[in-house]
Amino acid sequence: MYELGVVYRNITRTDAATADALASLGSATVHEAMGRVGLLKPSMRPIYAGAQVSGTAVTVLLHPGDNWMMHVVAEQIRPGDIVVAAITAECTDGYFGDLLATSFMARGARALVIDAGVRDVKTLTEMGFPVWSKAISSKGTIKATIGSVNIPVVCAGMLVTPGDVIVADDDGVVCVPRDLAAKTLEAAQAREANEGAKRDQLAQGVLGLDMYKMREPLAAAGLKYID
Amino acid sequence: MYELGVVYRNITRTDAATADALASLGSATVHEAMGRVGLLKPSMRPIYAGAQVSGTAVTVLLHPGDNWMMHVVAEQIRPGDIVVAAITAECTDGYFGDLLATSFMARGARALVIDAGVRDVKTLTEMGFPVWSKAISSKGTIKATIGSVNIPVVCAGMLVTPGDVIVADDDGVVCVPRDLAAKTLEAAQAREANEGAKRDQLAQGVLGLDMYKMREPLAAAGLKYID
Amino acid sequence: MYELGVVYRNITRTDAATADALASLGSATVHEAMGRVGLLKPSMRPIYAGAQVSGTAVTVLLHPGDNWMMHVVAEQIRPGDIVVAAITAECTDGYFGDLLATSFMARGARALVIDAGVRDVKTLTEMGFPVWSKAISSKGTIKATIGSVNIPVVCAGMLVTPGDVIVADDDGVVCVPRDLAAKTLEAAQAREANEGAKRDQLAQGVLGLDMYKMREPLAAAGLKYID
Amino acid sequence: MYELGVVYRNITRTDAATADALASLGSATVHEAMGRVGLLKPSMRPIYAGAQVSGTAVTVLLHPGDNWMMHVVAEQIRPGDIVVAAITAECTDGYFGDLLATSFMARGARALVIDAGVRDVKTLTEMGFPVWSKAISSKGTIKATIGSVNIPVVCAGMLVTPGDVIVADDDGVVCVPRDLAAKTLEAAQAREANEGAKRDQLAQGVLGLDMYKMREPLAAAGLKYID
Amino acid sequence: MYELGVVYRNITRTDAATADALASLGSATVHEAMGRVGLLKPSMRPIYAGAQVSGTAVTVLLHPGDNWMMHVVAEQIRPGDIVVAAITAECTDGYFGDLLATSFMARGARALVIDAGVRDVKTLTEMGFPVWSKAISSKGTIKATIGSVNIPVVCAGMLVTPGDVIVADDDGVVCVPRDLAAKTLEAAQAREANEGAKRDQLAQGVLGLDMYKMREPLAAAGLKYID
Amino acid sequence: MYELGVVYRNITRTDAATADALASLGSATVHEAMGRVGLLKPSMRPIYAGAQVSGTAVTVLLHPGDNWMMHVVAEQIRPGDIVVAAITAECTDGYFGDLLATSFMARGARALVIDAGVRDVKTLTEMGFPVWSKAISSKGTIKATIGSVNIPVVCAGMLVTPGDVIVADDDGVVCVPRDLAAKTLEAAQAREANEGAKRDQLAQGVLGLDMYKMREPLAAAGLKYID
Repeated sequence: MYELGVVYRNITRTDAATADALASLGSATVHEAMGRVGLLKPSMRPIYAGAQVSGTAVTVLLHPGDNWMMHVVAEQIRPGDIVVAAITAECTDGYFGDLLATSFMARGARALVIDAGVRDVKTLTEMGFPVWSKAISSKGTIKATIGSVNIPVVCAGMLVTPGDVIVADDDGVVCVPRDLAAKTLEAAQAREANEGAKRDQLAQGVLGLDMYKMREPLAAAGLKYID
Repeated sequence: MYELGVVYRNITRTDAATADALASLGSATVHEAMGRVGLLKPSMRPIYAGAQVSGTAVTVLLHPGDNWMMHVVAEQIRPGDIVVAAITAECTDGYFGDLLATSFMARGARALVIDAGVRDVKTLTEMGFPVWSKAISSKGTIKATIGSVNIPVVCAGMLVTPGDVIVADDDGVVCVPRDLAAKTLEAAQAREANEGAKRDQLAQGVLGLDMYKMREPLAAAGLKYID
Repeated sequence: MYELGVVYRNITRTDAATADALASLGSATVHEAMGRVGLLKPSMRPIYAGAQVSGTAVTVLLHPGDNWMMHVVAEQIRPGDIVVAAITAECTDGYFGDLLATSFMARGARALVIDAGVRDVKTLTEMGFPVWSKAISSKGTIKATIGSVNIPVVCAGMLVTPGDVIVADDDGVVCVPRDLAAKTLEAAQAREANEGAKRDQLAQGVLGLDMYKMREPLAAAGLKYID
Repeated sequence: MYELGVVYRNITRTDAATADALASLGSATVHEAMGRVGLLKPSMRPIYAGAQVSGTAVTVLLHPGDNWMMHVVAEQIRPGDIVVAAITAECTDGYFGDLLATSFMARGARALVIDAGVRDVKTLTEMGFPVWSKAISSKGTIKATIGSVNIPVVCAGMLVTPGDVIVADDDGVVCVPRDLAAKTLEAAQAREANEGAKRDQLAQGVLGLDMYKMREPLAAAGLKYID
Repeated sequence: MYELGVVYRNITRTDAATADALASLGSATVHEAMGRVGLLKPSMRPIYAGAQVSGTAVTVLLHPGDNWMMHVVAEQIRPGDIVVAAITAECTDGYFGDLLATSFMARGARALVIDAGVRDVKTLTEMGFPVWSKAISSKGTIKATIGSVNIPVVCAGMLVTPGDVIVADDDGVVCVPRDLAAKTLEAAQAREANEGAKRDQLAQGVLGLDMYKMREPLAAAGLKYID
Repeated sequence: MYELGVVYRNITRTDAATADALASLGSATVHEAMGRVGLLKPSMRPIYAGAQVSGTAVTVLLHPGDNWMMHVVAEQIRPGDIVVAAITAECTDGYFGDLLATSFMARGARALVIDAGVRDVKTLTEMGFPVWSKAISSKGTIKATIGSVNIPVVCAGMLVTPGDVIVADDDGVVCVPRDLAAKTLEAAQAREANEGAKRDQLAQGVLGLDMYKMREPLAAAGLKYID
């Protein structure tokens, strides 16, 4: 349940070096490094292919069909932030377009993650401002009801606390809690480190069956080959 | 409820100048100018990104899995028209492909909006014939049952009357009733006019909170800042 | 119902010449040539636009959230194959990424068709390894339970038998049974053959109504024109 | 597109005798009698089983999350009416509960058909006030924006004009246009009339194949029996 | 891929004693006894609560919106059969109502399982003829295109071969292949046998943790208790 | 993001008197009393009609297809509790049946709320153990991976903290945070108190328009009556 009508101005962000370093590892590797948790639902899709970002979460809670708080959250953005927008009920309206994106970019935001719709996607693509959303919709919103900024929110099924790290790419969006960010970065880098060697072997035709020594456990599990 | 088995040959189209001028304003601005109504469901998506068109609606009502009337509507197309296709029940079959698109383009159609599926999307993209649909599907259709052409239809949840203006882009599809087209164009242009100035200010870091004078109403609504 | 825990090593593939020749005809024409059957559900979408392939099916049955058998099927791939992956229950997890794709490509696979999710789609796109799936998801999988390889599977609603031909493009995915492949190729080529002439006529403004001699049957069906 | 902010007080209702007589025929028979059109989407489900009603439509257009106009439409209800509620965008909120139902019943309404959610369904069931809706939800609504009453609306994909007849039962909801009501009643009664005789024969084991003389057309269509 | 236009008159049914005995075990126990496979998708729901049946499958393949083959399959029903109906594409139309149910009952059918819609559900409920379907819809169908009877079909994602056993109850529908039926019955009965003793213990407050000796493996898996 | 592999044994429950008193007010009134927040998604439906309960939340986090932790949470149940089960990814499997229900009832649980599937619903209904779930499915689960008990979880889109109050009925499920429970009870009772008087007036034909004095604000909003 949410606290309504409040804006927390001072949040503790994950340190920038850690937050920034997670981008290149990607959402899949980072979520594996956390023990296969932290992902938002796969219904969250990028509005254009190829963007890959990380940053610290500032959160906003909005009401269905009402984007008033988008202007409130804009003021709380610092360079390196990613805005995470949750709605109090299911909604696919277009909460965000090119004007707000201009404002967000001027404040230093790197992306928007929203469990609703966006619009002006052609212009957003030209501006290079990435958005992960569950819908694209021209449907406009009103400015009538207050929500909150920088409270913990549930976005696309995942709890996001202000200051957490968001990592987003073509595969989806993952939230790394602030306390786990440094450890996750380390684990993700370790995971990444030996992928190159594996890839080389696999490219030469070595089978995962042999590389990962799976033949014995598969036989133990009862797998039978039939000629 | 629909009148079946009829083709209205003479429909009153919105004048071409008005219909054409709405394209560059886009679906979001046009729908706002009408008072936030007129949008088809966001399930209607373009088969490729970047197309932005407007035109006068010729309508066709089809049966599930049957595209016979597509050939009938082709004859009623005039240059500047957009074909709006409704189905009498839910269907995702591919009603339309490159041959029909060749015919529609030869008749002067600018686009197809269909509450079902299309196919040959690679070729349609190469041809530059934009389609907004709810599905892409190889599934072919038969030619067995008659529907109607140029009757009012419900397409993706919106009533479309022949001669109305359709505006479609990456954000979605909006229908502007013929009687409201001139007034809507005016309102949309007015809306567009002062977007440039706003964008400049926002790009310089001015907040929407200040530009739109929202601080007072937000406080009046009870918004509290916590340090 | 499925036989679990078995790998059939010797399957009878459709002959390569036939399997290869179906690619250029595309999923829509091939499915029409079979009598409008054989399509997987339209929820199967390519991870990038423009790929158009055909090949012989090797099948794998996996459990929800478990991609262990992906390594087992890799060994059974021969050049020209397309891997068809079915899951024993609904799942959108990312079963497949760039490492497995490297291995599949090294074995000669042309594509993956999977009734679940994939990840690393940016890298897969750069590698040019096409995948048709129902989801894109960072969500990783475990390796704990055995399934089967090269048994008949139901993938996206369609029965696929090992050795059948798979044809996949932007419009969807079709399965051609081995016994019908030669006949289907012939029928599809015949269908394709007279499309060029039709396209030319339609481009010149000839109506399908006249070209296909539809006016009489439409009138017989009761269609009325109203001026 | 809709006219907003208007209440039409004088609508021409289908005559009561015709509207009332359609109830016992049921939605399936009535829709067949109209030529298999007029049905609302099957997502419209009754909140309890067994209700079967017909009545004249009074319509209301509401905004997402806003049920203000429900109080406005209440005043326009006359005995024998069924309220048909459409929303300007997708919404599953609970627009209607036991208090409004008390008011509607006091005015003589027979049912509500709403393309959104309802609540207090336990009490509504006890009161015997049937509702067909696409959702059940506790989610409350506000009273902030005006819509319209007794304009033509699109409800669950079907155009409903005030004064049309609504027939609703466990199978779904059908709208019979006022002009077609008398003819439809006649056709539906004729259809119903010979169902009894058919049912008796079928119960004795006579096959539809013989009763409807289908064996010859099936053979002509190419059906083959294999022993 | 399906063979169209054929009716297999002679199928080998699972022996009646085995098929009949599976009903009382229910779909959940039977599917566990098979190794957690064989279930149709959970979108298949009973039209009324409380029915629990088993029987031998006779299958029918239909086209979208066309129920002609329902009359053909009726003739192939023998006492103790359950009709399993698959459609060549997604469809929610009402393929089956009280007249067909009368005919099916006269032939000895125990139930219908259909991956589409049904209608007359009030009457079907009164008649006590259970149906598992994915939709309820008044939408009628035509009789124009032939399909097949008693070929293997994919129904709600599961392959069903004529003569297999179908077990259906409030929890869903499971298909037991003919060859596995005897073994499955045995395994299911064994499973059921010790449920009574377990239930008694659990009712007395014994924990599953202790009854199933889970404390040690849970600790081994790393579970920690915090006071 | 979730803490995995922990069981919190000591949680602070809302006091029993408050938790118990909320049941009779129902989910709709309680959610209104909190300011229209706190509802789980309307996809959460009761397995049988008519149950209306409240109780203190004990939470459990499970993995897709794995119900091992259900046995762990059973031990943490105290009389008056409602178990709230969240899954780390989308899943409709049947996590819970009559044996677990027997155990839960023996421990004093009043209900289960689960963002997945359940089975044995016929028996659960006979036992009178209510469940709110998003699916009913025979699909069984394994016992392989540990989750957590009594951590804050997101269930059907809503954050639930152990010790919060859950109120569930035919309209849905609402979560009342422990800190707000007393205040919410008071507000809900006040709301309920004057419903009786309102209902009487409405039943006598008084319009909400007059009772709530809406005519003036509606006119101010621009509503026009047309005769």
